[in-house]
Amino acid sequence: MITYNKPTKSQWLELAKRPAINQESLNTTVSDIMEAVNQKGDIALSEFGRNFDGVDLATFKVSDAEINKAIEAVNEELKQAIQLAYSNILSFHQSQLSEDVVVTTSPGVNCWRKSVPIEKVGLYIPGGSAPLFSTVLMLGIPAKLVGCDEVIICTPPNQNGEIHPAILYTANLIGITQVFKVGGAQAIAAMSYGTETIPNVYKIFGPGNQYVTKAKELAQLQGVGIDMPAGPSEVLVIADQTGIPEFIAADLLSQAEHGADSQVILLTNDENILSASLDEVAKQLQDLPRKEIANQALENSKAILFDDIDECFRFSNQYAPEHLIIASQSAISYADKVVNAGSVFLGNYSCESAGDYASGTNHTLPTNGYAKQYSGVSTDSFVKQITFQELNQTGIKTIGNAVEIMAEAEGLIGHKNAVTVRLKSLNNV
Amino acid sequence: MITYNKPTKSQWLELAKRPAINQESLNTTVSDIMEAVNQKGDIALSEFGRNFDGVDLATFKVSDAEINKAIEAVNEELKQAIQLAYSNILSFHQSQLSEDVVVTTSPGVNCWRKSVPIEKVGLYIPGGSAPLFSTVLMLGIPAKLVGCDEVIICTPPNQNGEIHPAILYTANLIGITQVFKVGGAQAIAAMSYGTETIPNVYKIFGPGNQYVTKAKELAQLQGVGIDMPAGPSEVLVIADQTGIPEFIAADLLSQAEHGADSQVILLTNDENILSASLDEVAKQLQDLPRKEIANQALENSKAILFDDIDECFRFSNQYAPEHLIIASQSAISYADKVVNAGSVFLGNYSCESAGDYASGTNHTLPTNGYAKQYSGVSTDSFVKQITFQELNQTGIKTIGNAVEIMAEAEGLIGHKNAVTVRLKSLNNV
Repeated sequence: MITYNKPTKSQWLELAKRPAINQESLNTTVSDIMEAVNQKGDIALSEFGRNFDGVDLATFKVSDAEINKAIEAVNEELKQAIQLAYSNILSFHQSQLSEDVVVTTSPGVNCWRKSVPIEKVGLYIPGGSAPLFSTVLMLGIPAKLVGCDEVIICTPPNQNGEIHPAILYTANLIGITQVFKVGGAQAIAAMSYGTETIPNVYKIFGPGNQYVTKAKELAQLQGVGIDMPAGPSEVLVIADQTGIPEFIAADLLSQAEHGADSQVILLTNDENILSASLDEVAKQLQDLPRKEIANQALENSKAILFDDIDECFRFSNQYAPEHLIIASQSAISYADKVVNAGSVFLGNYSCESAGDYASGTNHTLPTNGYAKQYSGVSTDSFVKQITFQELNQTGIKTIGNAVEIMAEAEGLIGHKNAVTVRLKSLNNV
Repeated sequence: MITYNKPTKSQWLELAKRPAINQESLNTTVSDIMEAVNQKGDIALSEFGRNFDGVDLATFKVSDAEINKAIEAVNEELKQAIQLAYSNILSFHQSQLSEDVVVTTSPGVNCWRKSVPIEKVGLYIPGGSAPLFSTVLMLGIPAKLVGCDEVIICTPPNQNGEIHPAILYTANLIGITQVFKVGGAQAIAAMSYGTETIPNVYKIFGPGNQYVTKAKELAQLQGVGIDMPAGPSEVLVIADQTGIPEFIAADLLSQAEHGADSQVILLTNDENILSASLDEVAKQLQDLPRKEIANQALENSKAILFDDIDECFRFSNQYAPEHLIIASQSAISYADKVVNAGSVFLGNYSCESAGDYASGTNHTLPTNGYAKQYSGVSTDSFVKQITFQELNQTGIKTIGNAVEIMAEAEGLIGHKNAVTVRLKSLNNV
């Protein structure tokens, strides 16, 4: 980690920058994949499966037999852990559901909003080195909770054409029955356009590599909703003198092992905490199976000493981290200083891993500074709010004249007339 | 309007289609404008002002003197109308604010969400033929209500370098003090990058022409939030035998006068209502100042007769209209049939104009079928939800083991260690 000692404000902008992600070169590649799927459907998916995943599938849909086999294959210990996580995530997301409130804004004018589930949603679960069944929980639970009609999963198979049992077990636990063995940009294309086998959806969720990210971006330009723009995962730890270096180091490393491009930042107002944490990082790194990845991430990581804790929070708010850990016994009293962050972990026993898996909060969060304007995934992400209004005769009499005046001032006489014909009919009664 | 008599299901897809919008050709033009503003700041804005708006401004910011003059220029009748609208919009949007709820998901594990205002937001208010002060209300009220720190408006001046008084009056009423005389794609660029005069913002709201729309799309790709993707405005009216043709026609025309590309659709299960409404459209059209525009829109508009009212709703849900008027005495009993729509107007006295101006609901709504997955603007649009979690020692003991098991199953040992070091320290106490 690179250490900075009380940087000046003019240095902050540079320190808070993420590495630029150049996806321009991907545009053509991914556009071509999307177009092939749009034109040729399942045939294109088969071709890409052979070429990219090295697997030739007769069918993309995971069968009931495969699901049953997966349920048997997952050991009891993991099943119970997943069930605990399920229960916590469910109860936190249940608290996000809101009641419709009818507001009488003027006499005879009632307005309300209604949460209506998005009918068709698609969840992308990456394959690769880690079988991310935790992401199945994080996306599947709110989707099923709000009552989306059709919830599908696309996830790449291994070279034997199989999906990791924990992914299938988790999907089944949540009640998702449509799982397709398709990965990469072609999976995003399939969910955007639909193929003979895979239904199109209205909104696509989930993480992925740069091809998947680019495909989601292109899908969005064509009117498909996406959860949020993506970037490398990141953690920022703010520690005061009551932080615990051994814990801080473990938290920094848990982020660093994600990928070489992971962003890891430590801010503190205490020199001793800083040096002790860095010592611990060096020590714990040695035993990490993914230490080469973690080491690459650490090379670009920053440990910054500030004059006081308020400076730490000001810098953090400028950086707008995906995960913010407040490593302090006074974490609760600092919580109100947080303006920009995805998810916040308060106190020495709230590690990021807890939120990644089982505390109940969602782990699909805004990266790359997007926490300044985006929220993480919640039940809100799976509904749209439709507004309703009902004016009775009193209502149109109460506000009609104001509408006429405003419409006329905007030069929209047709808008005015829609009120006038109604008011006239009431006067004639 | 083109009339269709009981179309088959296979015709629906075609009937529910919007005209394709080809913005590809705009890419270069708008990219160049954005880049010029990024590089040259205010100088570029001055150049574009001279070239596009035919106005040479010494300063972009509207002065206090100009605002005071505008307040005097607006007549008392319009002021009172705007104040009524303000009051209704405020009270409906207040009902959207939510309390933070702390959920104990497991013993010692507390999770909650906190709504935090987006610090800096920009509102684009188009100029052109209509001074859209109503849009100042619709975007400004929720922005100020949630407490965004910095709320700015960009709006194009006329050739004398002036902003319409009603826009300035409304901005002042809401408490927005930073109004800039800049329009078009260059305004979106200025709010995205910031210039010497205009601060950059984290999220941009508001309607605009195709250049503005393209600029918002490009801004979004660079990480600036936008309210929603845009398309031409539209209304769909569902009428049963209790609808009133005179009212229905006025509502169709109020949408048709927006622009030649406006989408206007009438669905009914009653032949008499259909023909009487079309007769009324022809009659009322004659007196409309914007009848040429309305006539063009009507040429592409559709009136469709269905077998029954349920078919009307099925078609409407497939179309997903921005505005849905249910012209029926039984409108309330039909409300639950609505699955996809931006804003719904229930009953014969709920005209779209009411919601456009003063019922209290927001008029910034998803068009182009986006109501399938997007909501209209609300207070939600101006905040992000930050999640918090606090685990105490009991908490990490309760869920720690589950996290360890799940992290290990995903092959992320660093994630597991972050729990293990904490559990060990507690066992050693």
